Parts: sequence; C-alpha cells; structure tokens
Amino acid sequence: MSKLLEDIVGELSRLPGIGRRTALRLSMHILRMEAGSVERMAEAIARFRTEIRYCTRCNNLSDTDICPICRDGERDRTIVCVVEQVGDVLSIENTRQYKGLYHVLGGVISPMQGIGPSDLKIDLLLDNIARGEIKEVILALSTTVEGETTLFYISRRLAQHPDLKVTSIARGIGFGDEIEYADELTIAHAIHNRIPL
Amino acid sequence: MSKLLEDIVGELSRLPGIGRRTALRLSMHILRMEAGSVERMAEAIARFRTEIRYCTRCNNLSDTDICPICRDGERDRTIVCVVEQVGDVLSIENTRQYKGLYHVLGGVISPMQGIGPSDLKIDLLLDNIARGEIKEVILALSTTVEGETTLFYISRRLAQHPDLKVTSIARGIGFGDEIEYADELTIAHAIHNRIPL
Repeated sequence: MSKLLEDIVGELSRLPGIGRRTALRLSMHILRMEAGSVERMAEAIARFRTEIRYCTRCNNLSDTDICPICRDGERDRTIVCVVEQVGDVLSIENTRQYKGLYHVLGGVISPMQGIGPSDLKIDLLLDNIARGEIKEVILALSTTVEGETTLFYISRRLAQHPDLKVTSIARGIGFGDEIEYADELTIAHAIHNRIPL
Repeated sequence: MSKLLEDIVGELSRLPGIGRRTALRLSMHILRMEAGSVERMAEAIARFRTEIRYCTRCNNLSDTDICPICRDGERDRTIVCVVEQVGDVLSIENTRQYKGLYHVLGGVISPMQGIGPSDLKIDLLLDNIARGEIKEVILALSTTVEGETTLFYISRRLAQHPDLKVTSIARGIGFGDEIEYADELTIAHAIHNRIPL
C-alpha cells in the first residue's frame, strides 16, 4: 500500500467515530478536491490546534484573550449563561434569542471519570460574579446525573450571593417530541411545572 | 464565534458525511490531541493530495511511477484482478489470499452519471495484456447494474484474445448472511452455481 495513502488513512482514523474504511473514503474525496482547498483544510486544522486560546473571562474558545462575546458592548452584561462546553454556546447562539454573556465550565462533575469541581472553571465564574455587575446566572446544563450534580454544586456555591438570581433552563417535552416516548421523569416534571395558557 | 474554530469546522464539514455538528466534535478532539500529532495529521492530508500519483501500469494509487505491487517480483505476473477502485485492492489484499497483480479501472460504466468506457482505464488493461505475459483476467466488479455492464463490456473487449482465461469472482450468499434476507437474483444464482461438497 502507498505510504502516502497509509499515512492519511492512519491519521484520519485516529479521529473519534472514523474507522479505516471511512478514513479511506474521506481520503478518496480529498484526492478529488482542488489542491488549494486541501491546503486550506490542512492549514485550518494545524492553526486551530496551535493558535486557539480560551477567553480569560468566560473560558469560551477564542482567537484573542477576551472573546468577541465578552467584548461585545451590545450584550447584556448583567446575565450569564453557564454551559458545559463550547458546542453549547454555539447551539444557544444559533437560536438568536439570548443576548447575555456565557460561562463555559469545560465539563461536568463526574466522579466516575475523575472530574471534580476544581477541574471546572467554577472559581472563575465566582470571581466574575464578585465584581458585582452580574444580576442573574442561568444554569444551562445537561439533564444527566453529572449535569444535575454540577447544577446542585454550583447553586450551593452561588448561595453566598443572596441578591443573585439563579435560574435553570426549563425542562419538559421538546418540540417535535411525542409524550408516548418521553421518560417518566421528564413527563412528571413537565406536568408539575405546567404553564398557564 | 472564533474565526479559527469557524475555519476548522467549515473545512471539516466539506467532507462527505460530516456535518457541522460532527465537525465541531472532531475539532474538540483535535484540540485535546498533542500538537505534534495534529501537525502530522495536517501534513498527511496536504502531502497526500500533492504527492500521490497513479501507477502507470495498474492505475492504483502509488508514491512512485510504478506501484509496489507491480514492482514486486514475488507476485504472479500472469494473473490480473480487475477492480473498480483503490479500496477494492485494499479489501482483496487484506484477505492475503491473492498473489497476482491488479488493475484499477477508476469506476464503472454509468450512462446515468455520464461515465463511458473511455473514462475508465480499459485501454491500459488491453495494452498490458497485449504484452503477452498475462494468462488470466479476474473481473472483481460490483453486482450492480453498472458493474454488470462494465463486466460485459470488458469481457467483450477481451474476446480478441482467445487464449486468455477470463473469470469473474464467485457470486453467492456471503458468509454470515441469511438466505431469508438475500435477494432472489442472488439466491437463484447461488443455487444454479451450487458447488459439490
């Protein structure tokens, strides 16, 4: 087998969810792409790893010390949405409904995986709150055991600020979901927290 | 959104079967990889596109003008296995059962996609056969309409060499396949071409 082909298949199959067969299919696609496009792809990969940094304020991925959202004067600086990871920021931004700031924890508390509170950017969140500008913290965490544990831990730490409003995103049946297939806990919660029409 | 992140997600999602969500997940994995590994991956992608060539004898991907299989003195040069694409060579090589040479057509005849015989490396195959060393041609093509058309076309072209043995790989029920779920044509063929035990 060609060493160049062996190299690209070997490297691509190191990525999660990409086996050798998929890597080969991707390689064949890359072969048919314009040389300039492939060059740009390779460069985007290399530069992302070497040049990306974390916003020193919200821990989101950023090209600069302070990310564009934290720098944006148009955003509501009195409200912070706490999320697990970078992808969550993108999902919420895509809704175009939220105009406050974010705080990226970098994971959730998971004793099984050896991730404790000190592995997450919780102290940075409290430092930001201590500056007094923030009036509300929205906890937008997964409804997993780890997510709930993290939510509980953070809400306890935030209790030292009695004037701070702490909320969680609403839980319930998602749009397009059928009640028949929802789990008991979700249904129970959705009935308990029913909203007047 | 960070431009570096936007770039890598944009580039990766140009690959087939990779949407923006998967591209983001791959990017997050790349972020956690060692810088040296990412560098090697980016380089393997760029080098593959710029340096790979096609073997001038068998049309397989190669780092050199003549591929390692065609150069290998240990292989049986009297037998050629004709396949559609590079991946097929790898699949057959993985069985370690075949010791002859290959010929990569680069596709199949497909009027629907505007691929005619002249778009495939069929003339190169006939040139190689004309040199007189080859005694048998195995046609290892897909059992699709396009594959069968290509098989028919090539076998007709090969008829000009009456001494040449032309075979097709066996069709039948694959190992691990259940007869219940096999299509009629395959079952009919498998019964018609039954083998004595």
